Amino acid sequence: MMLKAVVLCGNPKPRSRTLALAEALAAALLPGISIVTIDLAAHADSIFAWPSNDMDELIAVVAGADVVIVASPTYKAAYTGLLKGFLDRYGPGALDGVVAIPVMTGASLAHAMAPEAHLRPLLVELGASVPTRALYFVTDNMDEVDRSVEAWVTTNARYLQATLGRDTGRHPSGA
Amino acid sequence: MMLKAVVLCGNPKPRSRTLALAEALAAALLPGISIVTIDLAAHADSIFAWPSNDMDELIAVVAGADVVIVASPTYKAAYTGLLKGFLDRYGPGALDGVVAIPVMTGASLAHAMAPEAHLRPLLVELGASVPTRALYFVTDNMDEVDRSVEAWVTTNARYLQATLGRDTGRHPSGA
Amino acid sequence: MMLKAVVLCGNPKPRSRTLALAEALAAALLPGISIVTIDLAAHADSIFAWPSNDMDELIAVVAGADVVIVASPTYKAAYTGLLKGFLDRYGPGALDGVVAIPVMTGASLAHAMAPEAHLRPLLVELGASVPTRALYFVTDNMDEVDRSVEAWVTTNARYLQATLGRDTGRHPSGA
Amino acid sequence: MMLKAVVLCGNPKPRSRTLALAEALAAALLPGISIVTIDLAAHADSIFAWPSNDMDELIAVVAGADVVIVASPTYKAAYTGLLKGFLDRYGPGALDGVVAIPVMTGASLAHAMAPEAHLRPLLVELGASVPTRALYFVTDNMDEVDRSVEAWVTTNARYLQATLGRDTGRHPSGA
Repeated sequence: MMLKAVVLCGNPKPRSRTLALAEALAAALLPGISIVTIDLAAHADSIFAWPSNDMDELIAVVAGADVVIVASPTYKAAYTGLLKGFLDRYGPGALDGVVAIPVMTGASLAHAMAPEAHLRPLLVELGASVPTRALYFVTDNMDEVDRSVEAWVTTNARYLQATLGRDTGRHPSGA
Repeated sequence: MMLKAVVLCGNPKPRSRTLALAEALAAALLPGISIVTIDLAAHADSIFAWPSNDMDELIAVVAGADVVIVASPTYKAAYTGLLKGFLDRYGPGALDGVVAIPVMTGASLAHAMAPEAHLRPLLVELGASVPTRALYFVTDNMDEVDRSVEAWVTTNARYLQATLGRDTGRHPSGA
Repeated sequence: MMLKAVVLCGNPKPRSRTLALAEALAAALLPGISIVTIDLAAHADSIFAWPSNDMDELIAVVAGADVVIVASPTYKAAYTGLLKGFLDRYGPGALDGVVAIPVMTGASLAHAMAPEAHLRPLLVELGASVPTRALYFVTDNMDEVDRSVEAWVTTNARYLQATLGRDTGRHPSGA
Repeated sequence: MMLKAVVLCGNPKPRSRTLALAEALAAALLPGISIVTIDLAAHADSIFAWPSNDMDELIAVVAGADVVIVASPTYKAAYTGLLKGFLDRYGPGALDGVVAIPVMTGASLAHAMAPEAHLRPLLVELGASVPTRALYFVTDNMDEVDRSVEAWVTTNARYLQATLGRDTGRHPSGA
């Protein structure tokens, strides 16, 4: 059965560099897998609306995925309120069975610990498995996205494959 | 000059127990000081709106305060997306000169570290001074609010007074 | 090839309840696998010694394991200095390829977030993969160890089995 | 009465750059105040010894101080095991009444959040008041110590002065 993979981006700006990074990571990590992208910037009006069909649909897509790349810019040394507002709609353990990959972008290296300090605990609390390291990327270096993504995949793809219990289609070069 | 004190509550439900706790703390800590209360539940529609006069006014009120009690229920072992979305509107260091007191409520003791792990770092990143301990309160015990608040004030009022450099009007009983 | 599994306990008291919990977890999770136990209480004198054959040997055992259960009592809302002193001997990424399971005991539920806030980030920084949730256990409930361990295994074993890329010998009851 | 000020350094290497930074901060912040320095590198053999007169004396010195600058290099994205082992000797709330200033050094900016994520919560758990920001310093820049210390003091001295309830002897230039 085909893997279900989602990129969830919590940047209030649409089509952000954070989203571009997350999509580059998805493409490198899961070649040949079609990725569903959720750009929360397009749904900001619904985040705090109850009830909301729009939100209900997105919530189901993420919870039903095998792999979710959860991406956020660094605001105040943490994930954005937009991302948290979306994830707050879940009950405890709602992402049980989902493998999540934390991805954050920031203006400087000074916030490189934000994914471990804040985003990973959030994903774990939701019940997701987070077997890999997080990816933190300084946005000044957008021309190095491919190299950073490649380095991350080389180190982490095996953890993802192991946790998923199946091949992601990603192989070390030459294999 | 009179102290400017604000209660900022990030519970998506209006007039929540979180807000009641924060107001009880404000009354006990700053007797005789009038408190401005911001219940973000009433402003959820504006959190992600740009520009927003509503938000601009609230942002200015909090940044102009001497003391801000920042209160949130525990959602997913952290502060709410509603509170974070509001605070994300600030630039770095925007709460410089403000003394902040982190307050969180939760369904169980299991999340008692959430204020230290997540809310305090957020307030410090914004530039606020956080000289006291945080107050975490299990909402099942609402009939013990007064006792919990009193115990907290007994331990922490001196730090607040010292940082403010002035008397808050709060004195140990009998003084 | 047989799995190499290690229990690493950072309690300054020898043969502690923390160690008992970690060993119970190892037995339930990896039946039939022989477990190497390192009780750091017996090695406290060597923690800060340079060089130390004693330490060099233990360091190699942990780094060479497939699975390490890293256990600590909660001291000051975090892991112990004894555990950290031992792990500080590693270079960055030295536990690359190791699957680590964070386990903490505490006197009350109030520190239940300590594994996520402090121990997991430490293991990730060392390069380990941490695909499961942490196990936090209140030591007053020692007669419930089996039940807690069983509940944890039921929820988390699948992440471990997959990460290890092989069957752990653990099957759901009835299988 | 004269302020009691202590520099507590948790670097396993004696007379480290971490200690030099902490002493430079003490001198700039508290001119004219004599500072007691505790370099834990000289006491590593006693950290896990019970009982220990050496430790009992140091424990009393820190707990009896008005201001403690608590300094650590960054090991594994956190404070050292040496520092934690020392602080683990305290009971809960033992630093009640002490104003603590978290200081960390690191090889790169990537761990700049370590003081907020790990060291500050530890000091707060011990009962200390931490009204200022932390100081994180990249050790490659040792020739910029004075400038960094000066910038920190300019931003943070007011919180310390007020908390201490007295003038620290520190005045803005020209005052």
